[in-house]
Amino acid sequence: MPVYLPATVGMPLAEVDTPCLILDLDAFERNLQRLKQSLAGRSVMVRPHAKSHKCPQIALRQIELGAVGVCCQKVSEAEVLVQGGVRDVLITNEIVGAPKLRRLAALARRAQVAVCADNAENISALDAAARESGVTLDVLVEIDVGANRCGVEPGAPALELAQKIAASGNLRFAGLQAYQGSAQHLRQVGERRAAIEAAAAHVRRTTALLDKAGIACGKVTGAGTGTYVFEAASAVYDEIQPGSYIFMDADYARNDWTESGIPRFEHSLFVWTTVMSRPSPDRAIVDAGLKASSIDSGMPRVAAQDGVEYVKASDEHGVLQLNGAPGYAVGDKLRLIPGHCDPTVNLYDQYVCIRNDRVEAMWLITARGALL
Amino acid sequence: MPVYLPATVGMPLAEVDTPCLILDLDAFERNLQRLKQSLAGRSVMVRPHAKSHKCPQIALRQIELGAVGVCCQKVSEAEVLVQGGVRDVLITNEIVGAPKLRRLAALARRAQVAVCADNAENISALDAAARESGVTLDVLVEIDVGANRCGVEPGAPALELAQKIAASGNLRFAGLQAYQGSAQHLRQVGERRAAIEAAAAHVRRTTALLDKAGIACGKVTGAGTGTYVFEAASAVYDEIQPGSYIFMDADYARNDWTESGIPRFEHSLFVWTTVMSRPSPDRAIVDAGLKASSIDSGMPRVAAQDGVEYVKASDEHGVLQLNGAPGYAVGDKLRLIPGHCDPTVNLYDQYVCIRNDRVEAMWLITARGALL
Repeated sequence: MPVYLPATVGMPLAEVDTPCLILDLDAFERNLQRLKQSLAGRSVMVRPHAKSHKCPQIALRQIELGAVGVCCQKVSEAEVLVQGGVRDVLITNEIVGAPKLRRLAALARRAQVAVCADNAENISALDAAARESGVTLDVLVEIDVGANRCGVEPGAPALELAQKIAASGNLRFAGLQAYQGSAQHLRQVGERRAAIEAAAAHVRRTTALLDKAGIACGKVTGAGTGTYVFEAASAVYDEIQPGSYIFMDADYARNDWTESGIPRFEHSLFVWTTVMSRPSPDRAIVDAGLKASSIDSGMPRVAAQDGVEYVKASDEHGVLQLNGAPGYAVGDKLRLIPGHCDPTVNLYDQYVCIRNDRVEAMWLITARGALL
Repeated sequence: MPVYLPATVGMPLAEVDTPCLILDLDAFERNLQRLKQSLAGRSVMVRPHAKSHKCPQIALRQIELGAVGVCCQKVSEAEVLVQGGVRDVLITNEIVGAPKLRRLAALARRAQVAVCADNAENISALDAAARESGVTLDVLVEIDVGANRCGVEPGAPALELAQKIAASGNLRFAGLQAYQGSAQHLRQVGERRAAIEAAAAHVRRTTALLDKAGIACGKVTGAGTGTYVFEAASAVYDEIQPGSYIFMDADYARNDWTESGIPRFEHSLFVWTTVMSRPSPDRAIVDAGLKASSIDSGMPRVAAQDGVEYVKASDEHGVLQLNGAPGYAVGDKLRLIPGHCDPTVNLYDQYVCIRNDRVEAMWLITARGALL
């Protein structure tokens, strides 16, 4: 953690040093409420994904508003969340290797922890680690419902793994993880809806098999910000896992949301940056480049809707094409909307939380760099 | 900094946890020697760029081998380097805003520190900060020699800024920063050579003007791993700033080096990763995604030259296309060559330094996240 912080509580935003990550608390809180309102009348449980924010303070706010717990992807993230006061964490991922399994089983003594599996040998290793630690571990079978990433095939292969978990002395079969990650950024509402209908059909086929085999399927969990209302309406998902709705990045904003039933979440997360050079009338250079904003899903966007484009990122610089916009003198500060929030958050050690253009709080990104 | 470390000294590489950053010390040391040998007979000074490694221990090794000091891009990087024992740091960048200028001037009391400028008002602010701190600060004029990023136009505009620096009570005009960043990844040797010849012509025109005006140009500094021998041979550059040569990433490896005079640097930096899922015969999923390897300059490459391709990265997952290669069972570990070293290094808190497949040391990436 660097010695110098970009801000102190009470400081006007104009004085906050750059580049840093600012969180607009009003917009953030409206997003939390919007998710809740969009699910009114639905019985689905909400388990937001903490991989987006990596911050126990945000997780606890989500739980205060009704979330049953949170998800994450790494044991080290789960450790940070539990240490920060979260009591119920689902690792929506496979955990492989003895050191991580030992830590996972140890954590299960301190909180409600569940994990996913898509492989028989991994299930044996999970059982051994749980036995050694003297715990019973909740394990969900991850099925591939179209994302082509991890997960066993739906149907018979999933049933086989569920049976293996159920037959393991120190494991409990806790349900199905069925996340359609590829659907989240399909631009058209119809495409996303169709992808989730297909995913739900895979789930239904699998739960029918489990039913027939007399294996209770604790729950079906999945979904992201791009599709969660479709999973909620599917009658097969019990729990949804949206993450990005709290921040809303430039990539998600390119989705069509019209009549999707998903509210328009606001951008609440920004990279605060300074114009550091004006080499030509139509070009300004800012101090936020690749190490300040991940460009894997496209360039950041300039938040002021004045025609200015962030056209190129190098390690420590961003190039703005001004397209005739006035201002942008050396020393001016501005907000960028990250192209992709999750890996951008992972570059910073704290959120500078602002309200009415003043710093209200600093929240540590305690799970920044939690890779293990 | 996460509580769990991926390794301890003495551990066999096979036991090192993933994902983590491994540094092959033999290859790294050969790269250090190769740079030195490739400059034999040249009088050019070497000032490696520390933005690539962000690690005082590496900077000190470079200095031991003859480097006059190092470069960096941020005041916070310079602070970390000086704190780590480096006595001579050039910030190859413009520093804007009162808090950073105060810290810069304070640091100049503790070490030889120089900074770049491309703007008259910034020069006034630098002078004021130096005066307040009671120091004389070395300032170079950055000229744009074709990179189209920061930097004033060569020739008269550069002379004007040099005169302003020379006339400032607490600044010393220390020379020209003339880095042709756009040339570094031009694939053909001829293109890179031509770009540096053009850059050198811009420099020559500017130093002639300075000469005529009676302003001593302390030095001309610039160059990167892709071109440094051309700057060294130009007779106008006094100092070169290669950074990536110590690690060599997949993007640089796509350059042609034939008869360039630049040695083939070896890949010494790897992301160590575990196969965590085998969802299909031709696909393996590894535990290193966007948060473990920056994809801004292309996907990481699988180090084993067995036809396996890393084809897709999501936040915490990488998809390998096996193309018929055997192996890659769940739990197997492998090395990835990062697409781009600099932003990848910035994701980690330490290098796991290995020799003969055993951990020899852990070096902290002390300037990780040093953005301010």
